[in-house]
Amino acid sequence: MNEFEIIHDIFAPLSAQAPGAFDLKDDAALLEESAYVVTKDLMVAGVHFLPRDPLDLVARKLLRVNLSDLAAKGAKPVGYLLGCVWPANVKREAIELFASGLKEDQAAFRISLFGGDTVVHGAKGAPLTLSVTMFGAPPKQGATRRGGGAARDDLYVSGAIGDAGLGLMALKKEIKLTTVDKASLAGRYHLPEPRLSLGAAIAGVANAAIDVSDGLIADAGHLAAASGLKAELEAAALPLSNAARGWLEGEDDGDKALAALAGFGDDYEILFAAPSSLRRSVSMAAKASRTSVTRIGALKRGSGVTLLGADGAPIPVADAGFNHFVRR
Amino acid sequence: MNEFEIIHDIFAPLSAQAPGAFDLKDDAALLEESAYVVTKDLMVAGVHFLPRDPLDLVARKLLRVNLSDLAAKGAKPVGYLLGCVWPANVKREAIELFASGLKEDQAAFRISLFGGDTVVHGAKGAPLTLSVTMFGAPPKQGATRRGGGAARDDLYVSGAIGDAGLGLMALKKEIKLTTVDKASLAGRYHLPEPRLSLGAAIAGVANAAIDVSDGLIADAGHLAAASGLKAELEAAALPLSNAARGWLEGEDDGDKALAALAGFGDDYEILFAAPSSLRRSVSMAAKASRTSVTRIGALKRGSGVTLLGADGAPIPVADAGFNHFVRR
Repeated sequence: MNEFEIIHDIFAPLSAQAPGAFDLKDDAALLEESAYVVTKDLMVAGVHFLPRDPLDLVARKLLRVNLSDLAAKGAKPVGYLLGCVWPANVKREAIELFASGLKEDQAAFRISLFGGDTVVHGAKGAPLTLSVTMFGAPPKQGATRRGGGAARDDLYVSGAIGDAGLGLMALKKEIKLTTVDKASLAGRYHLPEPRLSLGAAIAGVANAAIDVSDGLIADAGHLAAASGLKAELEAAALPLSNAARGWLEGEDDGDKALAALAGFGDDYEILFAAPSSLRRSVSMAAKASRTSVTRIGALKRGSGVTLLGADGAPIPVADAGFNHFVRR
Repeated sequence: MNEFEIIHDIFAPLSAQAPGAFDLKDDAALLEESAYVVTKDLMVAGVHFLPRDPLDLVARKLLRVNLSDLAAKGAKPVGYLLGCVWPANVKREAIELFASGLKEDQAAFRISLFGGDTVVHGAKGAPLTLSVTMFGAPPKQGATRRGGGAARDDLYVSGAIGDAGLGLMALKKEIKLTTVDKASLAGRYHLPEPRLSLGAAIAGVANAAIDVSDGLIADAGHLAAASGLKAELEAAALPLSNAARGWLEGEDDGDKALAALAGFGDDYEILFAAPSSLRRSVSMAAKASRTSVTRIGALKRGSGVTLLGADGAPIPVADAGFNHFVRR
């Protein structure tokens, strides 16, 4: 069984008594009696990062993927708990490098470590396993939900799509890029930018939001499913970086390449739905947060995700998106 | 470097801006702006449980070791976040068995799952890794701290000491016990009893408390160190179950065997310090919570831990206690 089934079939019933758990269909939980948004994401060597990735960057990414969940809720980060399972042969220098990355991003995002647990594992083959629980204060308008979208809502995404996936492919030498493009795209893979200012600015404007971690197609599917609707995306509207556009132009099958960019994970942009009557508010929120935002489609009655080509015909997309990196 | 050093040297400085993190010297963190006590403990196959342990019991122990941290604070459990890294060949039945254990103890302790993260790991040798962040409401008297002990405070411990360690040794066939004793002690290893009622009842009475996870000697050391004092324990006073007493009587060196019992981990009893003027309050708290409590020593000026024999001479104890299972 895959991880979606594990969560939906087995764990979700266990959250039935907690309204703030949203049936485990959201990025974060609300503790009803208090005012904290909490989220917990794991990162495991060989699954979410390359075993040779520098550990300071791994640490910063670990915080940022959790911060990205808070960003989608519009929450203001406060602090986190950290769990680490280190291999038995870990060197002090490695852990210090890891901690230096934490320190750097704690300062950048004004968050603090609150506690946690540390284990050193003796077994051969046990991968470095990292777990963060991040706490944030919800916006005064209330945390933006994943499932609040309405039919005919516009769909928007921040920044650019597909960069991190291209960066990962370049790091694994699966594609060849110019040195400059490789550095820029690898940077987007190693160090995502959680869209905290934008998330806060669209609170009360967006009906629904999700951070794009599994890939635009997959996460549009999650937002649409949670809202009981269908997501219709226009391929021509997808925001691409110059580097991604350069790669796309070198590909023979443009539609297929575009679908691939929309299928990659690790973007950590925010995808959100807002009523078309609020287009001016969205554009003011983008401006106020100094974050580029692009209208890429709409929610419709129905289910699933469609990526429409310039001719209005659907471009085939892979089913599951970025399936080896699954979160709620 | 060992895990104490990792935490003290590398991670503790990262918590400097958070008063509620207590320099990472406590079992749980307080989020200052709200009223929640949170704790996070990992359990990894081969470290904290035997790879063949039934997964429903593993699940219940996972919740209970976290609940035990809340018990030491006097907090009332509310809910938890769950992170799991499953091996790639995990069967649905195994995860369902795990979830059934969660469900059973959620009902028993009136807690709910709030969210989390699930990963399936493809690498050979990746052990089942489990992480829980548990939330509780602090008692109205304020959460009991680890470092609040005063010189001349009495030291108390709940229940009985060493059972879980004997149970583990019996499960690993390192010692031979009667069938009845083995079942009872293995049960204490697999299914600790978090002392939540007692923890709540001693809030405002105890100056300091800690749950005994690393072993009585080690955790008395932690409480004493956090309080800037020395713990003096009387061997003859240590509470033992009938099964443990039976094992002890079969050992040639009684002092050594007693020191071993006091060194085992996984008891999940509460060790606490209270002024001798409050002995009546302690005994009322024990009665109200229907939990046996034994006075086993006192805090003194100085540092470290001493286990005194019946003749008043110290019994040698191992330095580090139960060192392959380290938490704060």
